[in-house]
Amino acid sequence: MPAEAECFIICGEIMETFFCTRCGKVFPLDPYHTLCPACQEPLLYNPAKKAMKFRLKKDHPLEIMLDFLPLPSVNRDLSLDEGNTPLIRLKSIQKKFDLPPLFAKNETVNPTHSFKDRGTVVAIQKAAILGTNRIGTVSTGNMAASTAAYGARAGLETVVLVKEDTPEEKLISSAIHHPLLVRVEGDYGTLFRKSLSLAAEVGIYFANSVDPFRIEGYKVTGFEIFFQLDRHSPDILILPVSAGGHLVGLIRAYQDLKEQGYIRKYPNFVGVQAEGCSPVARSFTRGEMQVKRIEKAKTIAHAISNPDPPAGNLLLRLIRSVGGEILSVPDERILESQSLLAELEGLFVQPASATVLAGLLELAKRHGKLRSESKIVIILTGSGLRSTKSVLLSGISMTHSSLADLPQILKS
Amino acid sequence: MPAEAECFIICGEIMETFFCTRCGKVFPLDPYHTLCPACQEPLLYNPAKKAMKFRLKKDHPLEIMLDFLPLPSVNRDLSLDEGNTPLIRLKSIQKKFDLPPLFAKNETVNPTHSFKDRGTVVAIQKAAILGTNRIGTVSTGNMAASTAAYGARAGLETVVLVKEDTPEEKLISSAIHHPLLVRVEGDYGTLFRKSLSLAAEVGIYFANSVDPFRIEGYKVTGFEIFFQLDRHSPDILILPVSAGGHLVGLIRAYQDLKEQGYIRKYPNFVGVQAEGCSPVARSFTRGEMQVKRIEKAKTIAHAISNPDPPAGNLLLRLIRSVGGEILSVPDERILESQSLLAELEGLFVQPASATVLAGLLELAKRHGKLRSESKIVIILTGSGLRSTKSVLLSGISMTHSSLADLPQILKS
Repeated sequence: MPAEAECFIICGEIMETFFCTRCGKVFPLDPYHTLCPACQEPLLYNPAKKAMKFRLKKDHPLEIMLDFLPLPSVNRDLSLDEGNTPLIRLKSIQKKFDLPPLFAKNETVNPTHSFKDRGTVVAIQKAAILGTNRIGTVSTGNMAASTAAYGARAGLETVVLVKEDTPEEKLISSAIHHPLLVRVEGDYGTLFRKSLSLAAEVGIYFANSVDPFRIEGYKVTGFEIFFQLDRHSPDILILPVSAGGHLVGLIRAYQDLKEQGYIRKYPNFVGVQAEGCSPVARSFTRGEMQVKRIEKAKTIAHAISNPDPPAGNLLLRLIRSVGGEILSVPDERILESQSLLAELEGLFVQPASATVLAGLLELAKRHGKLRSESKIVIILTGSGLRSTKSVLLSGISMTHSSLADLPQILKS
Repeated sequence: MPAEAECFIICGEIMETFFCTRCGKVFPLDPYHTLCPACQEPLLYNPAKKAMKFRLKKDHPLEIMLDFLPLPSVNRDLSLDEGNTPLIRLKSIQKKFDLPPLFAKNETVNPTHSFKDRGTVVAIQKAAILGTNRIGTVSTGNMAASTAAYGARAGLETVVLVKEDTPEEKLISSAIHHPLLVRVEGDYGTLFRKSLSLAAEVGIYFANSVDPFRIEGYKVTGFEIFFQLDRHSPDILILPVSAGGHLVGLIRAYQDLKEQGYIRKYPNFVGVQAEGCSPVARSFTRGEMQVKRIEKAKTIAHAISNPDPPAGNLLLRLIRSVGGEILSVPDERILESQSLLAELEGLFVQPASATVLAGLLELAKRHGKLRSESKIVIILTGSGLRSTKSVLLSGISMTHSSLADLPQILKS
């Protein structure tokens, strides 16, 4: 909420608005204007309703959490029944590394196999309410697939902008939904800003990575974790950081829970970046409040390789106010963690997701033994099926056999 | 249930057994012997308990349906919280083809992104109960990934046998879990029979495609659909047919529901094969009760390309007793259906899964307009991310743009 910001009041009714966390200014709700014109920072959503409660008898996560979302109602036709994902115990990893109770929130079982669906569904619902019939995104991976899928489901014209050199195979899972797929010259940061500056002119609502409605959608994950832990906050909540929107959403969920009296204490929020592209972690470590663009990003964790994260500054401010840290982990640890999750727990995630375990192990090293009663939740953001090539880097171990030799090989 | 078969009674207590649907013989429960020694047909599970009810207050599908499963209890540590998948309305496709109410059961959001997890989790639970610590499977695709993942989670030694010429990329999602991966000379049918004949000798429980416990796990999908349709059977239930185990499981679910008084009428069960590999459909159409091995299989739907389906005969017998049909569809229709699901509903499935829509459209053509009050459920068995190459066959439509030209392109 904007602390001392003005409110929009029409006919005595408080209106829902956007606000800038940097300058505190408030703006009308407009899907074509989602950056603060003065600060160039992403705007956040400011609800009109102030008392919120959960509707636990409903069966769709968005309906259960409706009060906390920028929606007056839920249109099931625009949903793919995302969410309601498992929180599973990771006892083998916990035991191996002598950790406190460890849980994974498995976002890879969403309809397009990543956490992005949480945000996309809210952005699409809002687009329909606001009467925008063209949506877009700038992405090559998870978000492109998610936006193209939900855009198709809603019958909206959908535009996906990708960097010129994006390999065709990365575009398959968005192309299948037949969006307008445009390869454009320029890097991700340039495309991101260009898309938002063009939005009003071309009449496309770009629900990019830090879109205010998308961020509200990520709150649902936080609420689900709260209920899955029997109405408690986790003590430590760990997720990857790319553009910053996902962690901002999770923090906002727990801000809501605190404001509404559901919890007293925040989780310790831990954002993890890949060392080869860690602008937010670098600024956090140096105590700076401004993220500096990275010139050369190089990491196996492509899905979070964002050299100029648009919500970086916002995240630095937020994390200092609620408590937590942003750290980075090298590719070697990321690939090791990917293997650990697969070999010990049966979970195949993409390298960007595996950062959370690498981050947790780094945390345990830094802070010594973690308090044994703490509950730790790591969020697994995207499926390993999205980046199978990284696995080939470590090599596949395989045996050959004739049919006759098989008994011998299998006995050993 | 074996109609006139003997029962195993020890100390006055009825024991759970396996039975052969062809000769009616009953066998002791033994994970190393899952084919009838006389008929070479897959055995089915015969429960000891006779009165079954659902435990609707439980929160895990296996616990809710425990009475109907070959398990005395559920070990959550061996589960990845599979199941509980959405049943979503497909209004756009329904409208486009003037169909009755159409629903998709989305099995692609299971932990390893296919329906196989339903069976694997039950097989693994039973393996743990029976004290077998080595499990195996013969597969290259969905089942290999599922078995390797659950085997890893359970800490069991896991063996995956694959055909010698299987491309490395198809093995990534099982290899990541570090099973013993063996390339063996010989085709799928040979490997399937060899694995079962070796099972006892090498001490490996091969939970293959038609394993009796795996088949019991598939029943859970049928029960979920029943509850999601407010305790009604669908009028038509459509799923792909490969080895035959999945459809056998679904039929058994509705047999249980009928036996226990939950339903009066069976759904019309429709199994769909790809024309290029349709041994069961061919025998069904000719009124034969015996499936003949196909010599040359050729279809884009690799995941269901099974020239010698082990449960083929069993399926022919079952489907004639409960009502339904097995049909086949050409690759062209399969790829079209894959596009329709993606473009109209936002669902990206593998070609093998898309057969269900192709099958439904074929059904509508054959039988004229389907009764308007019928409820149709198609089961989407596996994620499109598993076979992205098929999409490239149809080609990806893409535009190129400079940054300067972008406004012009986006306005149009």
